[in-house]
Amino acid sequence: MTAKQMLAQRARSVEEYLSQCLEERGIPARLLESMRYSLLAGGKRLRPVLALSWCELLGGDAEAAMPFAASLECIHTYSLIHDDLPAMDDDDLRRGRPSNHKQFDEATAILAGDGLLTEAFVLMTEAGVKGGLAADRVLRAVNVLGRAAGSGGMVGGQAVDMEFTGREGQVPLEELQQMHAMKTGALITAACECGAILSGAPDEDVRNAREYGRAVGVAFQIVDDVLDVVGDEATLGKPVGSDEEQGKSTYPALVGLDKSRELARGHVDGAVGHLCGYHGPESEFLTLLARYIVDRVY
Amino acid sequence: MTAKQMLAQRARSVEEYLSQCLEERGIPARLLESMRYSLLAGGKRLRPVLALSWCELLGGDAEAAMPFAASLECIHTYSLIHDDLPAMDDDDLRRGRPSNHKQFDEATAILAGDGLLTEAFVLMTEAGVKGGLAADRVLRAVNVLGRAAGSGGMVGGQAVDMEFTGREGQVPLEELQQMHAMKTGALITAACECGAILSGAPDEDVRNAREYGRAVGVAFQIVDDVLDVVGDEATLGKPVGSDEEQGKSTYPALVGLDKSRELARGHVDGAVGHLCGYHGPESEFLTLLARYIVDRVY
Repeated sequence: MTAKQMLAQRARSVEEYLSQCLEERGIPARLLESMRYSLLAGGKRLRPVLALSWCELLGGDAEAAMPFAASLECIHTYSLIHDDLPAMDDDDLRRGRPSNHKQFDEATAILAGDGLLTEAFVLMTEAGVKGGLAADRVLRAVNVLGRAAGSGGMVGGQAVDMEFTGREGQVPLEELQQMHAMKTGALITAACECGAILSGAPDEDVRNAREYGRAVGVAFQIVDDVLDVVGDEATLGKPVGSDEEQGKSTYPALVGLDKSRELARGHVDGAVGHLCGYHGPESEFLTLLARYIVDRVY
Repeated sequence: MTAKQMLAQRARSVEEYLSQCLEERGIPARLLESMRYSLLAGGKRLRPVLALSWCELLGGDAEAAMPFAASLECIHTYSLIHDDLPAMDDDDLRRGRPSNHKQFDEATAILAGDGLLTEAFVLMTEAGVKGGLAADRVLRAVNVLGRAAGSGGMVGGQAVDMEFTGREGQVPLEELQQMHAMKTGALITAACECGAILSGAPDEDVRNAREYGRAVGVAFQIVDDVLDVVGDEATLGKPVGSDEEQGKSTYPALVGLDKSRELARGHVDGAVGHLCGYHGPESEFLTLLARYIVDRVY
């Protein structure tokens, strides 16, 4: 099986969990519809799969970690809903369909985002409260994921990105990297780290998971920028060339396409390096997954 | 000391904690400024004080519970920022100052809200992660507070309220009560319940805390409606009579002023009833606090 096929297979079990995780919470009908509209709009489910795979690799109970893994997708989805709002990136399309505020309305989209973010934390705690995982591990993982998703992480990264948009000229590479590390890197890193924490593995393994995640996160962002230049509109579900049109600072704009690809490959090699102490199918999968992320641009 | 003075005294220690709880998180400057602008804009700090008082009443470590208590104010503040947005209630003023999106801009206000909500969950976990409180208690409290703040609670209540606004004619009392129970009641209830959970008290005490909170929450909302009719604009920091102007369904509009006051008093008596098994200064304070909430309308 290729990494893509394995990813798709694992994504399906996440999908199944996501499709019922908002039931029986007394959510008003229209709000629930809007939350589900975005949560179940497809996507690779990369973050939950990373968390589950690291948990499994380190001998943890991946099944018990499923609610926690699903929470990563709730957080990712809420961030997309809020980023698409007219006051933010003002995007009418997301994954080839109307964005949440276009399909519903702005107020509902804001609340759907708020709701998904809050339910994410409820999901994180479920495994610890209902049994299955030790409370101290879960609590530590909630802390790590909260910091990554918060104003010093993902939310902060979006704020910096908004500031960049209002600025004249290109943003220096270093600042761009720092912004991406917050906006997209932090959540991917936390996914791997939390999977490791939930497995109960020692700190050294947690560190490997974190560093793997960090490297994969950087590569992922570079590839995203490259795909905006060379990608296929139908496959991506969004217009190609929009970054350049909007005068956005990107890796290809700053260092060129070839150098961007080279950088991405370097980060993937770095990520794979953190797997050298592990063996078996999970280690192989995480290796393939890292490589697959870069292969998408060739 | 009156309840008002005691509340103010306790609020000061919460205030002190809030003023430094967002430091050293790597939050971008403008985003941090905007989060602090709303978080430190005054307010009674009722929810944190309720949590700390119930924790103390049941023999818990109120000092260790402070980060958790502060998280309640972060959640309350984020909800006000998002509720004020143009797409929601479109309020230009909050506590006598420009609302967050007026002082900064819409994108920053959305992100400040997202940031405060996420940091709230980080704060909740702090006491358990850094030691001081047992992880299983903290985790259970995070679960309870998350549900109360989420789409089946506060966020859901705001969604229902938005639906009411678009509706012709008055909303039936029963539906109004259900909306308020979600929009404002859930968080006040959770404040009391979580304080009890963090103290490690048995389920019966947790139930008393919850029922006290539920009753106080209902009384609080009725009083809020009454104050919009008879209150003093300068004291409230917002225009009086705005509910009627906007054709909002309120307790006074549905059952009249006298009956509203009577209802509020009844709920306060109910709240105090849940304190009858407890003695000492904390029990007295929680009794006074419940009565003070209603006294504001006389």
